[in-house]
Amino acid sequence: MKRVSISLADGRELIYFDERDDAARATVDKRRLPAPPAPAQLRFDPLSDEWVAIAAHRQTRVFLPPAEECPLCPSRGGQLTEIPADDYDAVVFENRFPSFAGDTGRCEVVCFSPDHDASFKDLPVRRVRTVIDAFTDRTAELSGLKGVEQVFCFENRGEEIGVTLHHPHGQIYGYPYITPTTKRNLESARKHPGGDLYGELLERERSSGERVVAANDLWTAFVPYAARWPYEIHLMPHRRVADFTELTEEEKDACAPLWLELTRRLDGLFGVAMPYVAAWHQAPVRVDRELSRLHLRLCSPRRAVTKLKYLAASESAMGAWVNDVPPEQAAAALRSVDVTSKTS
Amino acid sequence: MKRVSISLADGRELIYFDERDDAARATVDKRRLPAPPAPAQLRFDPLSDEWVAIAAHRQTRVFLPPAEECPLCPSRGGQLTEIPADDYDAVVFENRFPSFAGDTGRCEVVCFSPDHDASFKDLPVRRVRTVIDAFTDRTAELSGLKGVEQVFCFENRGEEIGVTLHHPHGQIYGYPYITPTTKRNLESARKHPGGDLYGELLERERSSGERVVAANDLWTAFVPYAARWPYEIHLMPHRRVADFTELTEEEKDACAPLWLELTRRLDGLFGVAMPYVAAWHQAPVRVDRELSRLHLRLCSPRRAVTKLKYLAASESAMGAWVNDVPPEQAAAALRSVDVTSKTS
Repeated sequence: MKRVSISLADGRELIYFDERDDAARATVDKRRLPAPPAPAQLRFDPLSDEWVAIAAHRQTRVFLPPAEECPLCPSRGGQLTEIPADDYDAVVFENRFPSFAGDTGRCEVVCFSPDHDASFKDLPVRRVRTVIDAFTDRTAELSGLKGVEQVFCFENRGEEIGVTLHHPHGQIYGYPYITPTTKRNLESARKHPGGDLYGELLERERSSGERVVAANDLWTAFVPYAARWPYEIHLMPHRRVADFTELTEEEKDACAPLWLELTRRLDGLFGVAMPYVAAWHQAPVRVDRELSRLHLRLCSPRRAVTKLKYLAASESAMGAWVNDVPPEQAAAALRSVDVTSKTS
Repeated sequence: MKRVSISLADGRELIYFDERDDAARATVDKRRLPAPPAPAQLRFDPLSDEWVAIAAHRQTRVFLPPAEECPLCPSRGGQLTEIPADDYDAVVFENRFPSFAGDTGRCEVVCFSPDHDASFKDLPVRRVRTVIDAFTDRTAELSGLKGVEQVFCFENRGEEIGVTLHHPHGQIYGYPYITPTTKRNLESARKHPGGDLYGELLERERSSGERVVAANDLWTAFVPYAARWPYEIHLMPHRRVADFTELTEEEKDACAPLWLELTRRLDGLFGVAMPYVAAWHQAPVRVDRELSRLHLRLCSPRRAVTKLKYLAASESAMGAWVNDVPPEQAAAALRSVDVTSKTS
């Protein structure tokens, strides 16, 4: 893999992750761009004991532009985009409308493919492997920034969950605090007798098999016993690692096809493109790393071909979840999807 | 107010709350209904330390039926609905597709008006007062049930947040546990020096006034300093009360017009019907009542006339909120809506 880092016109960083070592990359961004907006303000909510970011400038961010104005496509035929090159494999750059920046962290965009109409699930395994390399690189680098306490790599997919750009891409957030979900998971892990809560949950799923969706020698994917979303899959390495930077090359190689398979199984459920959040949970940068375990939570709100699960009052106001699809039924449906014909 | 309780064909309870003492109410449900479904299963998630309800039967619930098949309209012209009467003021009945029932709690529906096309914001003040009476009655009764630890009264409004029936209605959940949000709020209140966290927050908002939206002698409505939603309003009584059952008649009288005004201000923001969750936070039934304070959180995900805020990866996977509308700006916009012409 070849890694080339450049500066965009307004000073933001962009990094090409190329699968060929001889790729020549455009390094000059010819646009005239205004200076980046002021970073978000962090406000503390004493009732929930949590931070909220107030990011007024994001109201003006690009919203579902037509394909010919897509800022994530390569720059071609005079159309200058966020990526100066006329082609790329995977590319990462600092978000122009960040929720967190400067002293409050960092937000990056990861383009998975130069093809505007591609989907993650249609990527070749090799590209997914490159994305894992990019996530690893960014986790290592953002972990070294002064203001960053946790690095979060994710993909939002589908207008149903608020995606504002169709071009296939993920994002990386470097949070200036340990996120509420991670904080709670860590508290549970800390209280757990024996101290390996994630490991025990994984063992239980592997030995029962009832909710396992797919597995190989190094990773297992399962629907958790108390799933919140209609279709929710956790993908966990068998070895305890805190984040992407601790994975071996073999573990990364084994992760790519399985991650890809899960997105194909999701889309095979109803024969429609499923909206989903693919969230890679990682340990905090500085503390409690031994209590955490890197894992993916791949969650879709689609509960039937024409119906979505919404977070209405019970979930959004009370945090009390009701899931209409039993996890065992979800796992069986996901297992029964035929993905053999599409595996590349 | 006149209160008449009857049994529906499948044994569920229905209660008429009438504004006239001489209303004659149909008491016989002539439908043939199947037995109620098995209650939801409660599953414990050891990572979040929270309960999740698995309610498979809810997949078959009624979904956006045409007006002539609305189960919340009065029974008229041979069309038999959930309400046997041909008219009503407000009516409460046990949900036919409950998330919680039997040993796992209780779910009820509250119809605000017999008019299918009405909206909460267009109700007369008197009806809102009746709804408060119904919420008070149900809070008292559900608090007496063995399996109920917390009572939650709320309205979900708008297809954008997943409403499955258009007829204006709210709901009441009797949870078999203390909900995650309330649990966290109680922990914060318990740790707070002086012990009146809610009271201090309210005082701060009242003396600054910067984020106050509306107020009278007994209640104040404000956008919280660290609001999570683009438009989020908290309505709090000046006196510390744990739940609806502790309000005086004067406090209830003063609440009704203010609650109504807030929903009108929301709809006046963009000139379109706003999706919202109106969530009445109440103390747990048995514990920590002195740490809590009854209040309404009225939250809309609409951030612009054609744009919604979605809970994508940062919020839904990490619990890390980013709000694009500064609370002071939201409060000013809400204050500037002209509601005088519509106040009844």
